[in-house]
Amino acid sequence: MSGEVIRCKAAVAWEAGKPLVIEEVEVAPPQKMEVRLKILFTSLCHTDVYFWEAKGQNPLFPRILGHEAGGIVESVGEGVTELQPGDKVLPVFTGECGECRHCKSEESNMCDLLRINTDRGTMINDGKTRFSKDGNPIYHFLGTSTFSEYTVVHSGCVAKINPDAPLDKVCVLSCGISTGMGATLNVAKPKKGMTVAVFGLGAVGLAAAEGARIAGASRIIGIDLNESRADEAKKFGVTEFVNPKDHDKPIQEVIVAMTDGGVDRSVECTGNVRAMISAFECVHDGWGVAVLVGVPSKDDEFKTLPINFLNERTLKGTFFGNYKPRTDIPGVVEKYMNKEIEVEKFITHQVGFSDINKAFDLMLKGESLRCIIQMDA
Amino acid sequence: MSGEVIRCKAAVAWEAGKPLVIEEVEVAPPQKMEVRLKILFTSLCHTDVYFWEAKGQNPLFPRILGHEAGGIVESVGEGVTELQPGDKVLPVFTGECGECRHCKSEESNMCDLLRINTDRGTMINDGKTRFSKDGNPIYHFLGTSTFSEYTVVHSGCVAKINPDAPLDKVCVLSCGISTGMGATLNVAKPKKGMTVAVFGLGAVGLAAAEGARIAGASRIIGIDLNESRADEAKKFGVTEFVNPKDHDKPIQEVIVAMTDGGVDRSVECTGNVRAMISAFECVHDGWGVAVLVGVPSKDDEFKTLPINFLNERTLKGTFFGNYKPRTDIPGVVEKYMNKEIEVEKFITHQVGFSDINKAFDLMLKGESLRCIIQMDA
Repeated sequence: MSGEVIRCKAAVAWEAGKPLVIEEVEVAPPQKMEVRLKILFTSLCHTDVYFWEAKGQNPLFPRILGHEAGGIVESVGEGVTELQPGDKVLPVFTGECGECRHCKSEESNMCDLLRINTDRGTMINDGKTRFSKDGNPIYHFLGTSTFSEYTVVHSGCVAKINPDAPLDKVCVLSCGISTGMGATLNVAKPKKGMTVAVFGLGAVGLAAAEGARIAGASRIIGIDLNESRADEAKKFGVTEFVNPKDHDKPIQEVIVAMTDGGVDRSVECTGNVRAMISAFECVHDGWGVAVLVGVPSKDDEFKTLPINFLNERTLKGTFFGNYKPRTDIPGVVEKYMNKEIEVEKFITHQVGFSDINKAFDLMLKGESLRCIIQMDA
Repeated sequence: MSGEVIRCKAAVAWEAGKPLVIEEVEVAPPQKMEVRLKILFTSLCHTDVYFWEAKGQNPLFPRILGHEAGGIVESVGEGVTELQPGDKVLPVFTGECGECRHCKSEESNMCDLLRINTDRGTMINDGKTRFSKDGNPIYHFLGTSTFSEYTVVHSGCVAKINPDAPLDKVCVLSCGISTGMGATLNVAKPKKGMTVAVFGLGAVGLAAAEGARIAGASRIIGIDLNESRADEAKKFGVTEFVNPKDHDKPIQEVIVAMTDGGVDRSVECTGNVRAMISAFECVHDGWGVAVLVGVPSKDDEFKTLPINFLNERTLKGTFFGNYKPRTDIPGVVEKYMNKEIEVEKFITHQVGFSDINKAFDLMLKGESLRCIIQMDA
């Protein structure tokens, strides 16, 4: 079907907060530097829910959401040389052009051309959508829009992975799990035997804990307001659970007291600015490193006394665990294949595509970590 | 004279802000783990002036100030095995016990036992002073009190250096110059060709610029409110001078515009909290690192939007350039001996001990970078 419009099923968000509707849509062929993917499995991430609710952002509807997924290249557009039909791939919500200063820097993954853009609902090449229904455009989301049997993405947002990798598992590595695990392994970089605090025990936070477990942390302190996270967190290496509701004093003081001066590393995965401050102030002076992962409300200010820095603490932020999508994600999949990382424990539910709204319900109720959506069921 | 009281000249600060008075004082012998030093050269640092003015701290007088210096070990107390009479040394305002978690950490120099303590005016061993006049105690300062022909310091605060090193030059490496240079070389760690911004072009800031020059920075942007710093700064590798007074918009925006998105590294050496925020916000996303050196007023809050971190910027603080006093400072002196670093250009004035108050005048007027005080003149 290369070069032709494909008609297929997609879950369309017509309005903020209203259930998605499975529709038959048209998917145009890929243009210059684009590829069209057949999505086999997708999963649901908080970011999908956040933009579906459209609270605090510019609403952009109708839109096809979805950005954690795995699929197969169906066809490629002009100029695409590194991918071909049949390649097994993970689409990623942020890209890697390979040419800009960020892509050429060893330290950055914030590509100038293909960096995440939550406001854009069209393709870069022509500013138009590849999705339509009855001739009317349907907007893209994060350049991926994986809640569709077929989607068109920029080739710089596609990680080509091991053809033996099971997509129903590794699809979760294209966003949240890599984000949390990378924050620990690539940015906080705990040494063997160090203590690590993780703020927020959703999928990203548990992935950060998993990273600490892999790194050989001696203690992994998980902090969450939701007591029900305590048991589950143990599976991810969390050795101690702390609920700020159980304490009268600021939680950073509780952690400092528990750890004789502070943890060696902390990773903040809630996006709450008070938790960010706690995550910074709970690291040990002399060598402590705090890493921010969670995305805050845009007006919240981070505040602390400068002496907390001057006493040789470090605060860093990370985006997508500092992984470069095309360069690094295939290697993360290999780690799964080599059993160095476990992804199964993140997958708590599975539904067929026609039941995609159930995945939203599960996440809104806080019952799921990751719910896999099987496109052909 | 080992084991006996030494009578010698010292410059005593009797009252806040009043000229020092050269007095004959008694210097008791060193106790357990202490050494008595004959000071040959000392220099004046802003911290001496700050505690002499005693604005905002608990005043502690009479006191013998001074902490940047070079001398010779006169005698050693019980238990001191790594130093002996005749050793050429630099006393340091912060120490290294060698036993605590900080000393054992590769990353920290904030020794639990001997970390700087500006409030303490006595020796750790017995909580008493080794200085007295007519039987009345005179307080110590920073554990060093180098404005005296003889002083007693903890052996963990003494760096044994190359016996060929000229003390009238290398004495400045015991505080400010190492602080600034180490902030760049040990903490900001610019790679060859990177751009570096330095906030505040006093001795510490110029030493930070010197560090950037040594590291091979392509552009070194110096920021200071004092226009007269512009010419001098060129000697220290500063390629562009920016005066915030010349601009209507926040200086971080000016620097971001000058550098196509921000500098790769910045080093803050003023202690002004607004400059700290500017120093952080002027580094490039993806890889920028800002390092805080200057000590702020204790109630000033550092504030910024968390997205500035999440876009992969790093903020770190440093203390004494992250050098461990005993382990690392001898190597800094070697770098001077090998002509890798230049200290002469920091030394703008020299006075005899009897003229020590002139050194204060020069610093208060902003005319000197470092004024060397020769003890026997």
